[in-house]
Formats: sequence, C-alpha cells, structure tokens
Amino acid sequence: MTSPMSSIAVDALRAQVSAHVLQFVQRQAEQLHQISPELGPWAQALISLLRQGKRLRPAFAVWGWQAVAGAHALQAVHEQVVAACASLELLQACALLHDDVMDASALRRGQPTVHRRWQAVHEQHGWQGNSAHFGEAAAILLGDLALGWTDQMYFSSGLDAPTLLRGKPALDAMRAEVSAGQYLDVLAQSRGETDLRAIETVLIYKSAKYTVERPLHLGALLADAAPAVMEAFTGYGVALGQAFQLRDDLLGVFGDSEVTGKPAGDDLREGKRTLLVATALQRAQPAQRLVLQDALGCAELDADLLHQARQVLRTTGAVASVEQRITALHQQALQALHTQSATLDPSAVQALEQLAQAATQRHH
Amino acid sequence: MTSPMSSIAVDALRAQVSAHVLQFVQRQAEQLHQISPELGPWAQALISLLRQGKRLRPAFAVWGWQAVAGAHALQAVHEQVVAACASLELLQACALLHDDVMDASALRRGQPTVHRRWQAVHEQHGWQGNSAHFGEAAAILLGDLALGWTDQMYFSSGLDAPTLLRGKPALDAMRAEVSAGQYLDVLAQSRGETDLRAIETVLIYKSAKYTVERPLHLGALLADAAPAVMEAFTGYGVALGQAFQLRDDLLGVFGDSEVTGKPAGDDLREGKRTLLVATALQRAQPAQRLVLQDALGCAELDADLLHQARQVLRTTGAVASVEQRITALHQQALQALHTQSATLDPSAVQALEQLAQAATQRHH
Repeated sequence: MTSPMSSIAVDALRAQVSAHVLQFVQRQAEQLHQISPELGPWAQALISLLRQGKRLRPAFAVWGWQAVAGAHALQAVHEQVVAACASLELLQACALLHDDVMDASALRRGQPTVHRRWQAVHEQHGWQGNSAHFGEAAAILLGDLALGWTDQMYFSSGLDAPTLLRGKPALDAMRAEVSAGQYLDVLAQSRGETDLRAIETVLIYKSAKYTVERPLHLGALLADAAPAVMEAFTGYGVALGQAFQLRDDLLGVFGDSEVTGKPAGDDLREGKRTLLVATALQRAQPAQRLVLQDALGCAELDADLLHQARQVLRTTGAVASVEQRITALHQQALQALHTQSATLDPSAVQALEQLAQAATQRHH
Repeated sequence: MTSPMSSIAVDALRAQVSAHVLQFVQRQAEQLHQISPELGPWAQALISLLRQGKRLRPAFAVWGWQAVAGAHALQAVHEQVVAACASLELLQACALLHDDVMDASALRRGQPTVHRRWQAVHEQHGWQGNSAHFGEAAAILLGDLALGWTDQMYFSSGLDAPTLLRGKPALDAMRAEVSAGQYLDVLAQSRGETDLRAIETVLIYKSAKYTVERPLHLGALLADAAPAVMEAFTGYGVALGQAFQLRDDLLGVFGDSEVTGKPAGDDLREGKRTLLVATALQRAQPAQRLVLQDALGCAELDADLLHQARQVLRTTGAVASVEQRITALHQQALQALHTQSATLDPSAVQALEQLAQAATQRHH
C-alpha cells in the first residue's frame, strides 16, 4: 500500500484504525494484568503484532460505510464506525497467529513469530515438556483471545444496537468463511491440488470475501445500504480480493525479502498450491515440471533452485497469465463499482479506486 | 451428572440445549456444504463432538436466568434463553478442540480426537507434508469456526437486542478468561509449578469462572439481576467451580477409564500440576516424591507406577485434603446461594443445589 496513488485520506484512516485497536487491546491487557502479571508479556505479543499491518479490512469496511452514508455523515458517527471496523484487525491477528502455527513459520512481518518466541523462552528456562508444543499453545490461545475480542470490540464501538446488529451478519460470515477457506486451503496444499476450480474456491473464500467483499458489506450494512449496493460491492470485492491474493502469490515467489519481511521464495518452500503454480504445472514440459516439483515444499530451497523455479514460472507463461488475470479482475472490480457510482459518495468511490490500484500493484 | 439427585428438570434442560446447538450447527453446516462438499466431514466432526457433553455451562446459565426471572416467566422467553445459553457449548467445543491439540490427546469422550482422525485421513491418502500438522490444522480451524459461531448463535436466539447486549459482557469475560486461564495453566505445567497460589489462580480462571460463575452471570444479566444477586452468584460460582475442577482432578488420577472415556491416570501421564499433586509433593517424604516425579509426565506410565503414585497421593493425605476442600467449597457455594434465596425462584435454587451436588460428587 505504498503506491503514490494512496491518498492522504487512506493514510489518515489507517492511523485512526491503529489507534482504536491498540487502545482497545491495551485496556483489555490491563485487566488481564490484574488476573496475573504473567499475562503481561503474552498480551504484549498481541499488541506488537497489531502495531503493524496494512489495515486493509477496516479500510474497505469504512469506505464501504462512507460510500453509502456520504462524506457529510456526522464526524462522531464516523469515529464510531472506524472503531467498529477496526475490530477486524483482531480477527486478522487470530488468523495470522494460527496460520503461523499451522505453517510452522519462523517470521511474521520481519519478526520471529509468537510460537517461535515462546518456544525460545521455554528453551532458555529449561522448562518441562516440549518447547515447540509450549510455543504453539501460547500462540493458539493468543489467537483465541484475539478472536474472542473481535466482536467485543465491535460492540463497544459506541454505535447503537440496531446499527451494530444490522452489520453483524457480515462479521459472522467473515469469521466462518475464513476458517472454512483456510481449511480448504490446507486440504488443497496437502493434496497437491491442481484443479483450478478448487484453487479458485480457496481464493474466493479465504481471500476475496474475507479481505474485501465482507468488510465492504459490513460497512455498507452499518449504513443500511440498498441491495443493489451490496451486489455491486460483491462484484467489486470478489474480483478485487482475488486480484489482491494473486498479487500476493506473485510476491510470495518473486518478492524482495527485505520488502516483504519473509524469506525469498517462501511460498515455494511451503509448497503452496497457488493459481500461479497450478498454471505453470499445467503448461510445463516434463523437465520444467521436475524443477517445480523439486522446489515445491523443499525446506532447503537454495538460491539456485529458487532461480530455476522462477524461470519455469516465467517461461511457461504462468507469470504473464496471472498478471493478465490481475489486470482483468482489477477492471472487473472497477466496472462493478461503477454500476452504482451515481448513488455512492464520490470521495469514497475514489478511495475504493485507489485501494484497488494499491492492492493490485503493491510490492509487499 | 448421573447423581440420583439430578432432577427431571435438569435432564430435560440438557436435552433442550442439545437440540438447540445441534440445530444451529446443522443449519450452518448446510451453508458450508454450498461452499464446497469437502467441508461436510469437517463440519460433521464438530456436530459429533457436540452430540455429547454435560451441558453444564448452559445449565448454569439457564438456572441463573430462571432464579431471577422466576418459574412463571413466559415459556417463549424461556426457549429463547435456552437457545442463547446453548451457544456456550460452541465456546466449549473450541476449548476442547484446541486443548486436545495442545495436549496432543488421543481420545476425547472415548473417541479419537479430531486432530488424530484428520492425521489418519492424511496418512491413509498418502498426502503431501506432515500428517500430524495436517490433523492439527484441521482441529485448530474447526475450533476457530466454533468460537466464531458462539456469539452468532447467541445473537440468533430470538431474544431482543437490549436483553442480548445486557448479557454479552458475561460472554466476553468468559472467552477472555478461559484463554488467559488456559495460558496460565500451560505455563504452570511447563514450569512444574508448586506454588499453591499460582495453581489456585488457574483453578479460578480456567475452571471456576468459566464453568460456573460467568454462565450464571450470563443468565442473571439476561434477567436483569440486581447487583446483590450477581455477587451471590460469584460466591456460589467461584466456590462450586473450584470444587468441580478438584473433583475432575481426582477423577483424572483415580477415575475408571470406562466411565471417564480417558485412559486411567491420564492427568499424571500429562504431568498436570493440580492442587492434588502440588499438595502431595509438599507433604511427601523423599522416596514418595521420587515416585510422584517419576509418574508425572511419564508417557509410558504403566499400571504398577500408576498404582504406586496413587498410593503416594493417598498416604500423604493429599487425597483427603482435596476431598475436604471439595466439601468445604460445596458448603461455601450453598451458603453464598442462600444469602439471596429469599429473592430467588425456589425451583431454580433447588436446581442449583442439585447441580452443586452432582458436580462435586460425580464419577465422570
């Protein structure tokens, strides 16, 4: 989200979201401290995780709200909407914590993951039992804590009860769909899924609906949007969300590790069955397929094999195909948005256009 | 909960709770099926888990409500309250699923745990990657799904918004306290905690508040209870909840595996630092301490060592001490309840007395 197109409004919103979610968690952490000071470092790990992030989901939710409510909605209500939508960062924190355990990831946003840090504490103290299990337990429970806080923060935003209950089905759908989408993803990875439709289902549920469509719906419902607007947001969200993830898939293989905060080629090392990889496998010559299969899930993936695998992804045309798909989905998203742009707040439409561009053309 | 004192009313309530939670999850599972048929067996695993259980938390919540609302509250409202309180079974399902992953447990309620069953599926198909990791991911995500469904079910109970929002802080406290309590428990186990105060904190937060006090508060808040009633329920709940867990601790070492559904002496095998164990370690002679330390966390705990460890727990007086503590806490719970019994519905008070007896004198 460092595109030069990012407006000051998008940056300001991100800062507001950060302030709200950190304030909520710090207040809760103080209550935990009263139970036991031992809970301090654990809650602090969640706060550290929440200090970073693109705030994409809250941003889509707030712009979804403003698109319907208009730029002239009361400032006080805007602040409450930002607080309600900022709660999505807690759901995302749970997803990250549990993902890192499931993927056995060492790094997150350039820092050691929570399960690894707690494993190290266990090792340093020479405590009883398995250090890795201890680290995983700490991270699983911290994710549960964050997930439980999601709707608590949502309901403490100051919005009135009818408004909150109107938005809640979008939050409910988000939580269920991201768990289900993640499960389908884990299943696809394990099977070495090559069926493009199965991969697309994961893309839609784990990424597109979770990252864009449902957040937009949440904001739109808070503003009591008409069904036609909800539909336009589905069109925009499902297309843009897929494009966003496809960009992520490209960055997961070709991204600069200093910018992404993850080791280079990490997606290949983890054996991720992305559309990029599935497309390349379909088009590959036998020798090319062998290179890719060697690289996929190879824990000791070195610079040479990574280079070869990247070459295969390029020369099979898989990279170009995914880039074209991103462009097409980006256009599709804008078209869906524009079917309703006459009824929507112009500054919100502009922000959604900018978010679409930033999400599909980012470098991390 | 098979005490002869269990009334027909308690049994009938349990059946109602089961019907509500199964109906909710079956409806949600149908929606998941529409995303992908692959989600069917996964959602079914949650349904299977939910088919069993003592329904203790919903029972305390409903009796908490009835104690305040009275036996003559509208039947329709009673039904909605049962539906709202039945959602606590989903929170409990998450706790069980994640607990089993963290403890690497093989069995739950006499059946193979979800992570073990999914591990076996992975092995049978010869899928890629680590089978154990796959099983854990499936169980972690299923727990997340259940946790997310908790407040969705609560809010879909049919109760009006002001009532639901009045009860919600109890639900919020339950979720945060059980995660925090579990974390403190994992920490205590790893450290081989012997400090009785640290063990008591775990007992109160992980068990007493989560199982009894907060559910009672939830029901009482739904009925708009006076502060004095909330206080009485804290007194009853924190005391009874501790007694309940202390009984669990005794059953975890001395329970009949055919009745508990867990291998005999499982708590010793897992190295659990219960009040029972900490008391025995404090009182043990050097030779007795060696026996206990050998048994604690011993994966290959055999019948002979189990027998010896049980003898140490008895001869040090730890068993008698814990039994006395259960009796004292049981009395304390009843006294706290009776400070308010003049203002509470008599049939609910009777049910709470019966629940107290059943929880402290059960065999599984």
